[in-house]
Amino acid sequence: MEAHFLGTAGGVPTPGRSLPCSALRVNGRTLLFDCGEGSQRQLMISSLSLMSVDVVLLSHHHGDHVTGIPGMLQTMGLFSRGRGMRIMGPEGTVELLEGMMSTYGEELPYGLEVRDLEDGDGLVFEGVDISAVATEHGVPSLGYVAREPLRPGRFLPEKARALGVPEGPLFSRLQRGEGVSVGGKTVEPEEVMGPTREGRSIAYSGDTMPSPRFASAARDVDLMIHEATFPASMADRAAESLHSTAAQAAQVALDAGARFLVLNHISPRVEDEAAHAQEAAEIIGASKVAVARDFDRMRIDYRE
Amino acid sequence: MEAHFLGTAGGVPTPGRSLPCSALRVNGRTLLFDCGEGSQRQLMISSLSLMSVDVVLLSHHHGDHVTGIPGMLQTMGLFSRGRGMRIMGPEGTVELLEGMMSTYGEELPYGLEVRDLEDGDGLVFEGVDISAVATEHGVPSLGYVAREPLRPGRFLPEKARALGVPEGPLFSRLQRGEGVSVGGKTVEPEEVMGPTREGRSIAYSGDTMPSPRFASAARDVDLMIHEATFPASMADRAAESLHSTAAQAAQVALDAGARFLVLNHISPRVEDEAAHAQEAAEIIGASKVAVARDFDRMRIDYRE
Repeated sequence: MEAHFLGTAGGVPTPGRSLPCSALRVNGRTLLFDCGEGSQRQLMISSLSLMSVDVVLLSHHHGDHVTGIPGMLQTMGLFSRGRGMRIMGPEGTVELLEGMMSTYGEELPYGLEVRDLEDGDGLVFEGVDISAVATEHGVPSLGYVAREPLRPGRFLPEKARALGVPEGPLFSRLQRGEGVSVGGKTVEPEEVMGPTREGRSIAYSGDTMPSPRFASAARDVDLMIHEATFPASMADRAAESLHSTAAQAAQVALDAGARFLVLNHISPRVEDEAAHAQEAAEIIGASKVAVARDFDRMRIDYRE
Repeated sequence: MEAHFLGTAGGVPTPGRSLPCSALRVNGRTLLFDCGEGSQRQLMISSLSLMSVDVVLLSHHHGDHVTGIPGMLQTMGLFSRGRGMRIMGPEGTVELLEGMMSTYGEELPYGLEVRDLEDGDGLVFEGVDISAVATEHGVPSLGYVAREPLRPGRFLPEKARALGVPEGPLFSRLQRGEGVSVGGKTVEPEEVMGPTREGRSIAYSGDTMPSPRFASAARDVDLMIHEATFPASMADRAAESLHSTAAQAAQVALDAGARFLVLNHISPRVEDEAAHAQEAAEIIGASKVAVARDFDRMRIDYRE
């Protein structure tokens, strides 16, 4: 599981930052969180393949988050894509896509499933459960929390031995989740396994003011990608426009118990990236935060 | 007068080429020919200012030529533009912009004039006359020819002297276009000026198969920007899709008597740029052709 940062700007692009687009990579397939103008080309420049994109989840419908969709869909068609695509987002997503298709006269040679999501709705992407959580941006808006299912606990050979199971093929059967008969009684796998283990997880805030609901849904995630449009000195402007400062993003990550925070959606008003990171570091700790840059990537490992 | 190449790809972007957008720069103001996805960011990366763009002329409405419009208009609004903008293109441009505005819910703080053009229609940009010429791409499509008005001829001091005008303030008045009285008769400026001189000129083909009408309208231009989507080895494909090869573009430039040709709209199918230029060079001469690259710029000087 990897996160890729393809566009990390807020509102308007800059020479160094393309409009919002982050990717979740699982099993060689790609899910995009938002798809601002230029995302198809950012994908081409990155190590990801444009054609690996199977799902786009929109946080909301402001132009900077959605203007990359028509071009990407068209290019996939020109590249003779056959595999279906899914695009989902808050209320109005179906209408948005209808408008795009009609405006640009798109005809796609592949299936496109478009769906409006509500708070609590979910989908599955490459075995990962993703749920939508309502956020606060003054328009229909959603954040997303992606969690792998729980994994079985580790096999504990000493427990198996203590229950009289001889090392060898019976160990393998227990590890595969099957019960085994030993001396007239059955040993079940649960008896020789440690506790079930957390899957990997990632949360994406989209554009929002600090949201307790999002913090709660993102409990204990390995990686939180949170918008941090403005520096603390512009907290008033952040509040007016229903955005977050770096410090506010860090407080949400702290409240959620997130293991790592990436500050994303960086407005041109953030003139000093190091100071932006420092604002968050003062709350969550310097080892737990980074400012996203275009083409950054991050591997998410299992906790051990 | 300068031409800037901001996006030189054909159909789909590549890591090195953004979608179609070329700029005509006059008096510090900018006119765009086409506005594919990513054009606003290409402008920001270039030496041009996004806010200097006053006019966008569309060659046609295929997605790769127009998907950059909504984001650019939105960013201009976020930057508090007040100055009006003009967007013009072939039949359907008004409808296209209505679709974009309604799809993205754009509200702009500046005036936007949108107009459908027909073959022969014209506009003036910074004193430069621009006329639309119908091209051949299977959909409503236009090329554009921009010409400065004729300039007055050079002042010829020897002629003035021969007519009895003394060097000094009377020379200046003749140079400013005023008649002067000398020894009871009037000397008119035309009597002491050389022939009127050509203004500078540039022609932009948009997407088209080779078009005699475009060649004729672009007679004698200083710079022809012509699409050259495919190499000669794919002439069949070019014909089917109503595009041009590099050799065909060169033949159009030769027929028009263009002083220089830039090959533009380069598809990823063009694997060898040098060979692409060579195809055209064999027809028009190696000193008269170049393959456009993103961020190339070219100054157009007066002929002397």
